[in-house]
Amino acid sequence: MNNAKKNEAITRMSDDFAKWYTDIVKKAELIEYTSVKGCMVIRPYGYAIWENIQRILDGIFKETGHENVCMPMFIPESLLEKEKDHVAGFAPEVAWITHGGQEKLEERLCVRPTSETLFCEHYANIIHSYRDLPKLYNQWVNVVRWEKTTRPFLRSREFLWQEGHTIHATAQEAIEETERILNVYSEFCEKSLAMPVIMGKKTDSDKFAGAVSTYAIEALMHDGKALQAGTSHYFGDGFARAFGINYTDKENRRIFPHQTSWGVTTRLIGAIIMTHGDDNGLILPPAIAPIQVVIIPVAQHKPGVLEKANELKSKLSSKFRVKLDDSDNSPGWKYAEYEMKGVPIRIEIGPRDIEKGECVVAFRHTTEKETLNYNNLEAVIESKLGEITADLYKKALENREKHTYSCTTADEMNDIIAKNGSGFIKAMWCGDEACEDAIKEKTGTGSRCIPFEQEKISGVCVNCGKPANTMVLWAVSY
Amino acid sequence: MNNAKKNEAITRMSDDFAKWYTDIVKKAELIEYTSVKGCMVIRPYGYAIWENIQRILDGIFKETGHENVCMPMFIPESLLEKEKDHVAGFAPEVAWITHGGQEKLEERLCVRPTSETLFCEHYANIIHSYRDLPKLYNQWVNVVRWEKTTRPFLRSREFLWQEGHTIHATAQEAIEETERILNVYSEFCEKSLAMPVIMGKKTDSDKFAGAVSTYAIEALMHDGKALQAGTSHYFGDGFARAFGINYTDKENRRIFPHQTSWGVTTRLIGAIIMTHGDDNGLILPPAIAPIQVVIIPVAQHKPGVLEKANELKSKLSSKFRVKLDDSDNSPGWKYAEYEMKGVPIRIEIGPRDIEKGECVVAFRHTTEKETLNYNNLEAVIESKLGEITADLYKKALENREKHTYSCTTADEMNDIIAKNGSGFIKAMWCGDEACEDAIKEKTGTGSRCIPFEQEKISGVCVNCGKPANTMVLWAVSY
Repeated sequence: MNNAKKNEAITRMSDDFAKWYTDIVKKAELIEYTSVKGCMVIRPYGYAIWENIQRILDGIFKETGHENVCMPMFIPESLLEKEKDHVAGFAPEVAWITHGGQEKLEERLCVRPTSETLFCEHYANIIHSYRDLPKLYNQWVNVVRWEKTTRPFLRSREFLWQEGHTIHATAQEAIEETERILNVYSEFCEKSLAMPVIMGKKTDSDKFAGAVSTYAIEALMHDGKALQAGTSHYFGDGFARAFGINYTDKENRRIFPHQTSWGVTTRLIGAIIMTHGDDNGLILPPAIAPIQVVIIPVAQHKPGVLEKANELKSKLSSKFRVKLDDSDNSPGWKYAEYEMKGVPIRIEIGPRDIEKGECVVAFRHTTEKETLNYNNLEAVIESKLGEITADLYKKALENREKHTYSCTTADEMNDIIAKNGSGFIKAMWCGDEACEDAIKEKTGTGSRCIPFEQEKISGVCVNCGKPANTMVLWAVSY
Repeated sequence: MNNAKKNEAITRMSDDFAKWYTDIVKKAELIEYTSVKGCMVIRPYGYAIWENIQRILDGIFKETGHENVCMPMFIPESLLEKEKDHVAGFAPEVAWITHGGQEKLEERLCVRPTSETLFCEHYANIIHSYRDLPKLYNQWVNVVRWEKTTRPFLRSREFLWQEGHTIHATAQEAIEETERILNVYSEFCEKSLAMPVIMGKKTDSDKFAGAVSTYAIEALMHDGKALQAGTSHYFGDGFARAFGINYTDKENRRIFPHQTSWGVTTRLIGAIIMTHGDDNGLILPPAIAPIQVVIIPVAQHKPGVLEKANELKSKLSSKFRVKLDDSDNSPGWKYAEYEMKGVPIRIEIGPRDIEKGECVVAFRHTTEKETLNYNNLEAVIESKLGEITADLYKKALENREKHTYSCTTADEMNDIIAKNGSGFIKAMWCGDEACEDAIKEKTGTGSRCIPFEQEKISGVCVNCGKPANTMVLWAVSY
């Protein structure tokens, strides 16, 4: 028997939020550090969360007509340099291959930080006629950005993501795609991750390198910091011009097509932790939980207990991801273990429960327990999992609303931050980049986005006092 | 309308096998070349084949208790060097990262050519007690080997694969795992790819760098060359000793655990092409075909044709991967297109068929056609797909048997090769590496494996004439 686990408590969120976070990623066995700074092992439990995210999103992408491809992971330096804004944005943070085996390469190759240039090279090869459009491509791959400061999931040098890259005959089609995907991301975050997000447009200073416009979804974490959970970019025909991609339309004219790209990353796992987790560990939304129901036999050496536990497991396994833990650890150890791992529902079953034809169902997110009988258990569990998602979403939304503020001056913003440690701050902006920079300088927040749902907080810019019509969402962010 | 396709015939296999192969990978739209030598774009149709391979194998791995993880893609030079045989085997063919952003790295990192060293570092961190064993891990990732000569799928600098890495308390458990996986691979190749394989052990000179023993499955291609389709390695405790991985057993002793690794790659797609393809293009086994049934409407402008085609599509889509091609290309163009793409079953449906309540079903692998009525169509298609797999397997097996020879001298081997261009050659070997080298030198073949199913071709070594008890399978190979 092993009762040690209980004592390995994690740092409390209120004591040290950053330490609480890294304690969870380690103790819930999501990752392990490696000897390469900023690169991590994603362990089975962490990877299973990513597989669930992939499965759901990949299904939606395919339903909406997208196809998966796989580009090389290397980009020749000359190819990266073809679009000037793009190279300026990414070259400072790429990893360079200079040697293959014993030989020095004639041209350096970088490990893809993102794959616009590779997709463009490919599109130039395969797109000739209006018949070849649109191409709605996506890939699930690893990318590398040589970050200075790294944190598991939130900012790692290597990370996993999906990157959609589409190319269209017209600007309108491309813009519609950018919006469609932002909606897909938003709905996915809200329904599958129980995480409310705000959709908006990035200011020009915060656009993706090479984009005409960048759209994003922004979420608010437990500690009041914002996290960008997904982005969708409209490129216009800039990349097409730089890479010589064009097509012949029905009137036999040569036209430059319009492009988009969009992505979400393993960062979402960090967002889940910081949206739902508590001082006992992870709390996972059912849709992406590797284990949705864990069954813990009590007094499992007594006759009939393991048999009944196995029977329940078979019964529930056709509908849910179920684990029966019949190891020789104590029930107390197991309770703590699966609390740490954020399993939404725990079923406890012992000799007395079996006599009464019952089991005890405990909920991770409320610590409440209910006694249920075996009849109709699948339907009850199904409805409970739905309630859990709704509860988690509601709680996260309440937290966001509680930490959303409206300000009219930089001083007010600083007061809010001093009192509450960031939060989402709504304030007006005149559109001048100098004012955006000044606010960053004065408050330490950045403009997260210009929300699609605008409000009129005041008539003037929070910095310069000149007339302003744009509400920006400001926050300290990950 | 576009009738051009018909004229873009591919090189005939008998004229130039290598050109036939690259024509297929290009014209069936499996890959496209890129500006990085040896790296390719895997296009949607090619990637969908890989996704089907992944889905089937991943299901089997999970059923047999394996869990997916994700290791970093970078290996520090000092970590790669920890196991001396391993580094000797891989260092000459790795890509080296020397710079991150503007900075020169203190230590070079290589892009993983395989991940034993990373798994070992991780195991050393997480394995302490017998309770921590076994770990049955797998990952689906990209790896890089800086090959001089490259060919799409068969030998590319970057390729996709799965690499299983397991660690066990005892040698016996590890050996059983090695064998279990070889059987999984063999069964997968035979049932899902309709490709017969021979299971055997590699000679010492052909073992994986750092392995105690390497097992492999070998297949014979249309041109008589052999292709290694999967490998499974037993490492003993060599890596555990080199990396300081040990555990405390129940008697509180420190023990070195035993390891395995095993993998199949995107090379399997090359094997499928060269096992089943013909002069009209690809022929895909139903289990991994992205489109199992293509529906081609004939005279689709006529009333009711598209409606009926759509009705058939909905009807069949619940059971099969179905595409309805209602583009404005001619039926003839479409026939050639889906022949090139190796779609197992084509359904043609026109006004006269509809009147009679029938459709024409054409089979890619035989060019035969049958007229079927709509009743019970799903069940008939299902049984036809099963027959196709059986037919493809039978044909490939017949081809292999036709090109399998027994020889007792190197001269006989050379005669066979001169007459038939390789094939599998069974010949006895005394076990001396010098004789193995001599045969390679004299005949241009290599030892593919020592088949588990041994025969006594003669009593003496094919090279030196000394007594020999081991039958080796020799072949020119990919």
